[in-house]
Amino acid sequence: MSSSRARVVILGGGFAGLNAARALRRAPVDVVLIDQHNHHLFQPLLYQVATAGLSPEDITSPIRGVLARQKNARVVLGRVEWIDRERRRVGFTHGEVDYDYLVVATGMKTNYFGHGQWETDAPGLKTIADALTCRRRILEAFERAEWAEDRETKEKLLTFIVVGAGPTGVELAGAIREIAHKVMVRDFRNIDPECARVLLIDGLPRVLASYREASSIRAQRDLEKMGVDVRLNTMVEEISPRGVLVEGEWIESATVIWAAGVKATSVTAMLDTDLDALGRVQVEPDLRISGDERVFVVGDAANLEVDGSPLPGLAPVAIQQGRFVARQISRIVGGKGGPESFEYRDKGQMATIGRARAIAEFAGRTFSGFFAWVLWLFVHLLFLVGFRNRLFVVLDWFYAYMWSRRSARLILGRVVPGSAPWSPDVARTLMDYRDGDGEEAEVGADGRAPGE
Amino acid sequence: MSSSRARVVILGGGFAGLNAARALRRAPVDVVLIDQHNHHLFQPLLYQVATAGLSPEDITSPIRGVLARQKNARVVLGRVEWIDRERRRVGFTHGEVDYDYLVVATGMKTNYFGHGQWETDAPGLKTIADALTCRRRILEAFERAEWAEDRETKEKLLTFIVVGAGPTGVELAGAIREIAHKVMVRDFRNIDPECARVLLIDGLPRVLASYREASSIRAQRDLEKMGVDVRLNTMVEEISPRGVLVEGEWIESATVIWAAGVKATSVTAMLDTDLDALGRVQVEPDLRISGDERVFVVGDAANLEVDGSPLPGLAPVAIQQGRFVARQISRIVGGKGGPESFEYRDKGQMATIGRARAIAEFAGRTFSGFFAWVLWLFVHLLFLVGFRNRLFVVLDWFYAYMWSRRSARLILGRVVPGSAPWSPDVARTLMDYRDGDGEEAEVGADGRAPGE
Repeated sequence: MSSSRARVVILGGGFAGLNAARALRRAPVDVVLIDQHNHHLFQPLLYQVATAGLSPEDITSPIRGVLARQKNARVVLGRVEWIDRERRRVGFTHGEVDYDYLVVATGMKTNYFGHGQWETDAPGLKTIADALTCRRRILEAFERAEWAEDRETKEKLLTFIVVGAGPTGVELAGAIREIAHKVMVRDFRNIDPECARVLLIDGLPRVLASYREASSIRAQRDLEKMGVDVRLNTMVEEISPRGVLVEGEWIESATVIWAAGVKATSVTAMLDTDLDALGRVQVEPDLRISGDERVFVVGDAANLEVDGSPLPGLAPVAIQQGRFVARQISRIVGGKGGPESFEYRDKGQMATIGRARAIAEFAGRTFSGFFAWVLWLFVHLLFLVGFRNRLFVVLDWFYAYMWSRRSARLILGRVVPGSAPWSPDVARTLMDYRDGDGEEAEVGADGRAPGE
Repeated sequence: MSSSRARVVILGGGFAGLNAARALRRAPVDVVLIDQHNHHLFQPLLYQVATAGLSPEDITSPIRGVLARQKNARVVLGRVEWIDRERRRVGFTHGEVDYDYLVVATGMKTNYFGHGQWETDAPGLKTIADALTCRRRILEAFERAEWAEDRETKEKLLTFIVVGAGPTGVELAGAIREIAHKVMVRDFRNIDPECARVLLIDGLPRVLASYREASSIRAQRDLEKMGVDVRLNTMVEEISPRGVLVEGEWIESATVIWAAGVKATSVTAMLDTDLDALGRVQVEPDLRISGDERVFVVGDAANLEVDGSPLPGLAPVAIQQGRFVARQISRIVGGKGGPESFEYRDKGQMATIGRARAIAEFAGRTFSGFFAWVLWLFVHLLFLVGFRNRLFVVLDWFYAYMWSRRSARLILGRVVPGSAPWSPDVARTLMDYRDGDGEEAEVGADGRAPGE
């Protein structure tokens, strides 16, 4: 790296970071992209890996492969350890690198809002490891219910609780209800999967709170038609191996999934600049941080206020911001003048609810039902990275739609359901597949989130 | 299970066990199949998961799904803990079950021949967890080589050693050589993957020792043409994080894979009958154990001597034995007379060596090169369980053949290559994905295999 060209260091290979890197392919700069995973993850379909519909391989692409032919880009598999804005240098696991321009695109992770100890009993859904943990727990619950001796244990095992009724929670709840009723029903002898209960709990008064009210009403009606028990205005007071405590009452459940919130990763704090309550960086209209011309923050890690509220944490925002920053850097190194302001072209938002049911908002209108679902399929295939992944996902969907099968019903590793719900041994095995974050582990230990 | 019909308990859902269960579908018996995994594994393609060509989901099928429509069959996810032949009862993790007929089809696991402590530095290749460990180590080695500072470390990281030149070892060595030279070459900037060395080491004087000599010669020639360094008559003296010690000399390597041997699982010892040196049960010509009319042993777990040597541990043997035993049981419960003798219809054997290269033996002849390779593809697709898996595997192969890509280059979990080869942290993370066997772990501790 002895080139005299400007070096752009990008932290994170998600939608924002990868799009920034690709958009710099013809710029006279050297790009270094650092990520702690070797793959780009298509997060919108993560819930389908969690519910045994897709393989991890179908929604990931090796970052190195995506950038293979981009000669000005290099990829580092490593974890960011420090950022020195004075010296314009980033430290990662096994080295350091100088930058002329830094693009922070490190995204979000699960937020337990000060209850880090809940992570063991209620995994989140932000990484492939999270998705495999959820998949394993859901499939195992059915296996254990098949051999449970008393009715109470069986009911507990067949109760699935999703905390948080945003898009991820809604999609998860719908998908779990569907596999219980359409997929599992064929395969078990001793249980009636029709007994499976799926609860969707949120403290807010409506599902999909970031959507229009009409969409929320329609989504809730669809979920309830499918048989999901939607409980709104309901705060979770405690989560344990027993289940979830709400309004002073325990709902017994062996499978709780946390989709109630996200916060920025620990990287934003390394910038030593203003963060909001979720750890996101308060950025200027040109996505730079205040008082530093060389550091941009994009995607979920950035808080850009538009009309008094932050832009939502959606893939289109991240993609547009990544490309915008690439253009800014190209302008600067080309001497083409000062900064522009980022303007979000609203592409709308959408969530699938179940087989042939979805909610979509765009061009100022709300769509629902079959049309919204087809649109959802189409848009997700379009944005998936790589032809191979598109082909495999569409085939798996076709398969699932035609025969109500789930092709990825694989429990990785040996699983031995104990008689006690989540016996320590089973829990330990499950945890082995968790990805975790050194920091989060510490949070779990004392039960407080950093900065709280 | 209050039925008065005879109950057949099958231990293991591999080729032998699953075929026995399916062949009993019209018999007037109740079938209970116990396995410690929730999936049937198509072992012949496991090396392709290890070398990032296929997803785990592509070569596994949920056992429960395979037997879903077979009304007389039930599936238990559990680990066999004891067998009481007197009371005709089997104990598993969370219960017990009586049998009228027992079919032991528990297969083989990796055999370190008394060197259990080598497992950490040289994983075997018998389970999905093993394959993911190998995949992770291979991909990580390239990632770490990209950023290694000195030449020595780089060379060590790019040296891959496969111990054992049977079919698994030959297939692995060929595939690793191929990804190094055809796949990885595009993606790295700092290393020349052409420098990657692949060594295949065996103590015997030829590769594929169970094949005809002409096949061995051809396979070795093909491997060497591809650039694999084949070292025969070479005993491994020690394996450590440093590499492999052979003939008093250390070959430095960060990635060693053990394909040198297998032995029966711990279940056969629970039968309290005669075992051979590899823990396999010495069976009568009708596959029953001596002096017990109700216990059959099939597949790799059985040692049936034909013309003075045991039948090989091949899928066709297991499949035929599974079906044979199902017929015997049907005859017995139908009162149709005494036992028959199992006769193996030799289907030959085959191993792939690389792109468009394979060795096949059948109908008394040896085939090699492109024709054998097409035959290999065809036969493996034919025996893969499930239409979906066949479709996905054929697509991945097509993709790999046309564009020399590997679609499953996913390192599960977060990976942070340390500067030291296999830093304790990285090693621990890797081991989390291992499946392991309680027994084997103990072996690792004192360095001796049980019964040795």
